[in-house]
Amino acid sequence: MSVDGPSDEFGLIAKYFAPLAGKGGRGLKDDVAHLNNDIVTSKDVLVSGVHFFPEDPPDLIARKALRVNISDIVAKGVDPYAYMLGLVLTPETDERWVAGFAKGLAQDQEVFGVSLLGGDTTKQAAKGPIVVSLTIFGKKAVPGHIVHRDGAMPGDNIFVSGTIGDASLGLSVASGDLSMNQADMQYLLGRYRIPEPKHALATVVAAKASAALDVSDGLIADAGHLAKASGVGIALDASSLPLSDAAQSWCAEQIEMQDALVRLATGGDDYEILCAVKPSDTPEFIERAQLTNVAVTKIGTCTDKPAGRVKFMSSDGSLIKVVRAGYNHFRP
Amino acid sequence: MSVDGPSDEFGLIAKYFAPLAGKGGRGLKDDVAHLNNDIVTSKDVLVSGVHFFPEDPPDLIARKALRVNISDIVAKGVDPYAYMLGLVLTPETDERWVAGFAKGLAQDQEVFGVSLLGGDTTKQAAKGPIVVSLTIFGKKAVPGHIVHRDGAMPGDNIFVSGTIGDASLGLSVASGDLSMNQADMQYLLGRYRIPEPKHALATVVAAKASAALDVSDGLIADAGHLAKASGVGIALDASSLPLSDAAQSWCAEQIEMQDALVRLATGGDDYEILCAVKPSDTPEFIERAQLTNVAVTKIGTCTDKPAGRVKFMSSDGSLIKVVRAGYNHFRP
Repeated sequence: MSVDGPSDEFGLIAKYFAPLAGKGGRGLKDDVAHLNNDIVTSKDVLVSGVHFFPEDPPDLIARKALRVNISDIVAKGVDPYAYMLGLVLTPETDERWVAGFAKGLAQDQEVFGVSLLGGDTTKQAAKGPIVVSLTIFGKKAVPGHIVHRDGAMPGDNIFVSGTIGDASLGLSVASGDLSMNQADMQYLLGRYRIPEPKHALATVVAAKASAALDVSDGLIADAGHLAKASGVGIALDASSLPLSDAAQSWCAEQIEMQDALVRLATGGDDYEILCAVKPSDTPEFIERAQLTNVAVTKIGTCTDKPAGRVKFMSSDGSLIKVVRAGYNHFRP
Repeated sequence: MSVDGPSDEFGLIAKYFAPLAGKGGRGLKDDVAHLNNDIVTSKDVLVSGVHFFPEDPPDLIARKALRVNISDIVAKGVDPYAYMLGLVLTPETDERWVAGFAKGLAQDQEVFGVSLLGGDTTKQAAKGPIVVSLTIFGKKAVPGHIVHRDGAMPGDNIFVSGTIGDASLGLSVASGDLSMNQADMQYLLGRYRIPEPKHALATVVAAKASAALDVSDGLIADAGHLAKASGVGIALDASSLPLSDAAQSWCAEQIEMQDALVRLATGGDDYEILCAVKPSDTPEFIERAQLTNVAVTKIGTCTDKPAGRVKFMSSDGSLIKVVRAGYNHFRP
C-alpha cells in the first residue's frame, strides 16, 4: 500500500487500513501483495495535478501509469503480464484523448508483454482531475519467491540500477525552472515523462537480492523504507551515485556539489531498482546484472545501527545533511 | 469492462480498449476477467457526484464500493476473497472521514469474508470528486467454471433474485423527490445506499445458470446486455417483476401502472442477479436457490429472435413501450 501526500498521512493510512489487511497484504507494509502462491499485484493511482500535468499528451500519461506500476513489481522480482484499468475522465475528455491514451497503452503492452484484462471508465459530473487507477499483475520470476523490503541484513551491499535524479531535473525542465542545452533537456524531460522500469533485472533481483523496492519517492526516502522494514541502518556514499551525463552537466553548474547531490538523491520519480545483496551473493548479482545490460552500481552498505535510518555520506566520511528525504510526488 | 456515461461512450471504449485485451479479458465484453484458471477479477470505480453524494457517510461509501464490486462477481458464480483499493481524496478529507471509511470496509469484510490486499491513496491538488477505485478478486465457486453473459439459449428461463426497483425509488427519496411513510422511505433509502449482493447464490449460479450478470444499469438494460452477448431475444413479463412491499405501495399511488413498472425495471442500482437457466436445469436451480434463502423469480424467457433485443410484455401480451432501457448511474 502506498500513499501520496503529507507524511503524516502515512501514519493515518497505516492506522486505519493496516488492520484490514489479509494475509496476502502483509500488513500493507510493502508495495506489492500476494493473490496466491503465483500471482503478485500492486496498484498505483495517478491523478492529474499530482502525478502528471493535465495537458500532458494522453499516450504519455497512459505509458507512465503502466510503467510506474510495472516498476513496483519488477523491483520485487516479479514478471508483469496483465492489468486492470480504472479511468475517471472529465466532461471535456474527447475521443482524440481516449484514442491517444489507448495508443500509449498499446505501445507499452508490446514493450513489457502485458495485456488489458478489464476495468471501468467513468466521466465525472463536474470538472475535476483525470484519474488513472491501474492494478498490475505479475508472476514470480523465480517460482515461489519474491523479494520484499524487509530482508536486508547488516553487511549487505546496497545497489541501485540506472541513474538517479534525472526525472527530478526533468520535472524542473517541464516546469520551466531549468534551462540547459537542448539535448540534455530532452533527455531529462524523457526521463521524467517516461519511466524505464528495469524489467530485465527482475529475475536477477528475485534470485540474488535480500530486499528490494523501486525508487519513486526519492533514493534516500526509499532507502529509508527498506531500512525501516528490515530493521537495519543504511550508509549511502554520495560520491557513488550513478549520474547521467546530463545530471553531471547540471551538477557542474551548481555552487555546492553536496546540495546538488542531495537534490538528486531526494527528487523522486526515478523508477530504478534499489536493492540489498548479501556479500556472498554480490559477485553473482553483478555478473548476472551485466548479462541483462542494466547498469547496477553499489552505492552503500547496510549497518546494524541506527536501525531504520539512512546516512548520506560524503567521500571524506562526513555526514551530509538531508532536510527532506524525498517527495511524495510533485504538486504542479 | 464497464463504462458509466452516455451510451455512445460504450462504443468509444470498445473501439479503443477492446483491441488491448488479453485472453483473460475476453474482449472486454464481460464485467469480469480471468487472472488464471482459479482467480477472477473485476473493477468498479465509484466517483462522488456520479455514484454517490459527496456528503454521504464515509462508511456507507466504503460499503457501497465493496458491495457493487462483490455483486459483479457473485453474479458470475465467483466467491470473493480479497480486494485492492485505490482512493483519491480531496484536500478537505479529514481523519474522521478516513476512519469512517475504514470502519465501513471492516464491517463488510466480516459480512463477505474478504480482506484488503493493498492499494494506493492520493490527495488531489485541487478540490475534485472523491474517487474509490476497487479491484475485487474471487475464486470460482464451482472449480474451473464461471458463468458469462453469452451462454443463454432460446428457451432458457430468465430469473432474477430479490426485488427490483427499490434502489431507484431510494435515490428519489435521497434526492427529496419522493415522500412516503417513514418505514417505506427508510427501506428504500437503505436499498439505494447499501446494495445487498446475493453472495449465497454464487454456487447455484455457477452450477445451474447458462448466462448471468448483476443488475446495475437497470433490469431491462442488463437483460439487453445478456441478450446481445448471447445472441438471443428476451421476453420479460412485467407482471412477474418481484416488488418489495414499499415498491408495491409506491405503484399503488401511480396513475399508470405500466409506466410505474417501466420505471422500476429501468432504474438501476438493484445489484440483484439476473440469469438464464435451461428448462432442464430449472427445477434444480429453484430448489437449490431456496436452500440459500435468496428469493428468485422467473420473469421471462429467451427467444430465438429478435436477437439482442428485450421485449417488456404486459400480462395481456401487448408490448410495453420502453424509451430508455436503463441508466448508467445517476448524476445528482
